[in-house]
Amino acid sequence: MRDWLVHIRRNEHASLQTQIREALVSAILDGQLAREEPIPSTRKMAKSLGVSRNTVVLAYQGLLDDGYLMARERSGYYVAEKALDAVVTPKPIAKPRSEAAGSVDWAARLTMGPSTQANFSKPLDWQTYAYPFIYGQVDHTLFPLAEWRDCSRQALGKKWLGSWTNDTWAHDDPLLVEQIRRRILPRRGIMAADDEILVTLGAQNALYLLTSLLVGPKTRVAMEEPGYPDVRNIFRLQTEHVSLIPVDSQGLTLTEELNAADVVFTTPSHQFPTTVTMPLERRMELLKRAAKHDFIIIEDDYEFETNYVNEPCPALKSLDDEGRVIYVGSLSKTLFPGLRLGFLVAPKEIVAEARALRRLMVRHAPNNNQRTAALFLSLGHHDTLIRRLHRTYRTRWEIMGEALRQYMPDASRVPSFGGTSFWVKGPAHLDSEELGRAATAKGILIEPGRITFGVPDAPRNYYRLAFSSIDEKKIEPGVKLLAGLISPKP
Amino acid sequence: MRDWLVHIRRNEHASLQTQIREALVSAILDGQLAREEPIPSTRKMAKSLGVSRNTVVLAYQGLLDDGYLMARERSGYYVAEKALDAVVTPKPIAKPRSEAAGSVDWAARLTMGPSTQANFSKPLDWQTYAYPFIYGQVDHTLFPLAEWRDCSRQALGKKWLGSWTNDTWAHDDPLLVEQIRRRILPRRGIMAADDEILVTLGAQNALYLLTSLLVGPKTRVAMEEPGYPDVRNIFRLQTEHVSLIPVDSQGLTLTEELNAADVVFTTPSHQFPTTVTMPLERRMELLKRAAKHDFIIIEDDYEFETNYVNEPCPALKSLDDEGRVIYVGSLSKTLFPGLRLGFLVAPKEIVAEARALRRLMVRHAPNNNQRTAALFLSLGHHDTLIRRLHRTYRTRWEIMGEALRQYMPDASRVPSFGGTSFWVKGPAHLDSEELGRAATAKGILIEPGRITFGVPDAPRNYYRLAFSSIDEKKIEPGVKLLAGLISPKP
Repeated sequence: MRDWLVHIRRNEHASLQTQIREALVSAILDGQLAREEPIPSTRKMAKSLGVSRNTVVLAYQGLLDDGYLMARERSGYYVAEKALDAVVTPKPIAKPRSEAAGSVDWAARLTMGPSTQANFSKPLDWQTYAYPFIYGQVDHTLFPLAEWRDCSRQALGKKWLGSWTNDTWAHDDPLLVEQIRRRILPRRGIMAADDEILVTLGAQNALYLLTSLLVGPKTRVAMEEPGYPDVRNIFRLQTEHVSLIPVDSQGLTLTEELNAADVVFTTPSHQFPTTVTMPLERRMELLKRAAKHDFIIIEDDYEFETNYVNEPCPALKSLDDEGRVIYVGSLSKTLFPGLRLGFLVAPKEIVAEARALRRLMVRHAPNNNQRTAALFLSLGHHDTLIRRLHRTYRTRWEIMGEALRQYMPDASRVPSFGGTSFWVKGPAHLDSEELGRAATAKGILIEPGRITFGVPDAPRNYYRLAFSSIDEKKIEPGVKLLAGLISPKP
Repeated sequence: MRDWLVHIRRNEHASLQTQIREALVSAILDGQLAREEPIPSTRKMAKSLGVSRNTVVLAYQGLLDDGYLMARERSGYYVAEKALDAVVTPKPIAKPRSEAAGSVDWAARLTMGPSTQANFSKPLDWQTYAYPFIYGQVDHTLFPLAEWRDCSRQALGKKWLGSWTNDTWAHDDPLLVEQIRRRILPRRGIMAADDEILVTLGAQNALYLLTSLLVGPKTRVAMEEPGYPDVRNIFRLQTEHVSLIPVDSQGLTLTEELNAADVVFTTPSHQFPTTVTMPLERRMELLKRAAKHDFIIIEDDYEFETNYVNEPCPALKSLDDEGRVIYVGSLSKTLFPGLRLGFLVAPKEIVAEARALRRLMVRHAPNNNQRTAALFLSLGHHDTLIRRLHRTYRTRWEIMGEALRQYMPDASRVPSFGGTSFWVKGPAHLDSEELGRAATAKGILIEPGRITFGVPDAPRNYYRLAFSSIDEKKIEPGVKLLAGLISPKP
């Protein structure tokens, strides 16, 4: 027996049986085991690995069923001939590529350079930090995993197989569209027909589709400053005419510059990144402006569920009599961002174009996830989760607000009624990127704010402290520790 | 008790318990049940629905746990106050939109009109047709659903929750990248490093990303005629300079026109839609041309697993010494198209740009599906499936070839060694779109070929007969029936 064939790890993600299968399949397909090579008996393998014989028997049986192994009477198990047969592997003809392989001048061929755009980044292992004040990542302790798994299991059921394995670009999962139309949109005051709703790969995909359709090289776009860097990056791939409109304590300000825009992007529920809410009066005024100066509004209504003080203000879209507002929503903030599900609500002619473009771009959101989310919504798990998140975030918001008052009395914050983060203005001399590096060394993750400004000479003393991914007990000590890193004077 | 509250359907997808939950949650959240309204007792509900009381008790217990219902001693169940509390619904302020809501001239604002592009379409209920000779849809009877579900269950396990719920645009699932690199690419003769591989939302998404990066208004693109309409549509959104290069029995022909191209798109494994394979000699010649005239090749290697006669020819990418070939692969053909998973292999500077652009476009492929597919591959289920598909498709290919020789001796077909369809040239007077309509009326679905030509005056007598979605017993009678619909003379 070859000792190296199978290694199992007790604390591994997968069952022992799965690990044995995986190791043997790898060895066969990677050519480490020759055709008809004998495999250790179940007894030997079990003994050598220190696992029960049943475990090995079940793993072998699966491999027999699938044609990886064959059994010979009184002689044991062998690698099945056909396991290597049908999977024909052409021999690589190419020599290893020479170092001189760079005969193509790629830089000259690229029509754009998105990798050079600035953006947020966070360590992949953020969970290992003691005080992760980072934004938009899910708190695993709050997510109803069992319910999600149950919905996923149901969505993968035989009866529904036909409906989700197909390539269906012409329409989205009707169950999910119904849940969005009946359960999510009415809460924002929005009534929409099925053909005014498009399911997207997250809100990000909705913004990309809309920009591709509505923004050309001559289009004038206006957006909030500071604002959402990912949408600014998209706009700047299409046009040089991106106006940055200041934000005050009521969100986007209605400057003269706004009037010249063709398309205006705004986050009225909780302005990104300041989290201020645009009051009803300004919303009405913005709509009047849009009608008078004939511009379109893209409303990104992320985090609309998290308002801890007032009743949530109705969406701009719900106040819009002229069909000028295109609404973008996300399921990432309440489900999980890795799922990539969002939606847009627009006049049906725009939805038809966005659907046709989506076909070329990605076809559609994966059907199994659409169906799982639809079940999760229809069974009320999403509403349960929202209530839980609301309670939890409200508590964290209060704790963090108190901690900021106590430990950073000089830091100013714009008034905030919700969201999942605070936008903090440090002393004028503060460089929040330096602070970020010093904080990281102490196990504290913060988000320096310079990236949210579109101007090159952006202020350096703003930063974001998010509480969606940090345990409430960690908030006060984390803020205290962070405050100690900020020198009071230059 | 309100009779209308819960209706259950015995043959429904969901369990009875799930149906009861869903109906009650709907009634509560949609405001059909008022706060503190009494709910029928479990005994009454069970009796009225004709289900076991246990079923109702379990459904009610779940609703109690989640705060939708409350129980009062000796008084029964009520709608919980808090069920309606936290989910704050602003009243819609908007009047129903007036008919005059069309105050925006959308047509004037659109930068493109993708919805007007021609493309394949198929009936959503294609499974209900007796003879579905349609392409690219999965045959449910061949898909190892139990194994997929098992992998999905494992991927959703607690241990892995952290790795797939996050928003991870900077890298793809390392397990999936490893499987692509170690298991899929070597079969095509391709060696690639991790940073030369990008996971995409299906091959379609890879083509869209590459076009966005490499094709501007002045870029000259060349592609096969007939060819893949979805990629032609993408190219035509970007540039007017799309050359259509004729296909012969060895695939893309190496015309003079090719030399002027900046980017060449080709499907050498099985040309789309003719399924002809480009032989090694022409592949080498094409690569020489690319070097001499400095063009880039995008190789769409769909269906490379399905070659029934010869050994598969190594991918163009594997023969490319200069790094001029960008390889696009799909997992949709062997897993299922609704999953939306594909990948591209390119020089790392292109992968870096494509990753940055993907971030703005969709962020990344959903993590749960990446992980499920990685497990499915690593456990050998994908290879088992490929072997099964290969056997099944080969049989169907032989049966259909024989049926075509017997019933349509006059129809010519290009020589074909694989794929999942035949490309049939009917008599010169045939209008395959008319034939398609007549066939549909008889329960036969075919795919008229005009759409695969990029020229306006495309020939009308070609059509595609696919066998990936039709039972082998249906092939011969279907072809016979279809042949009877084609009049021998004009």
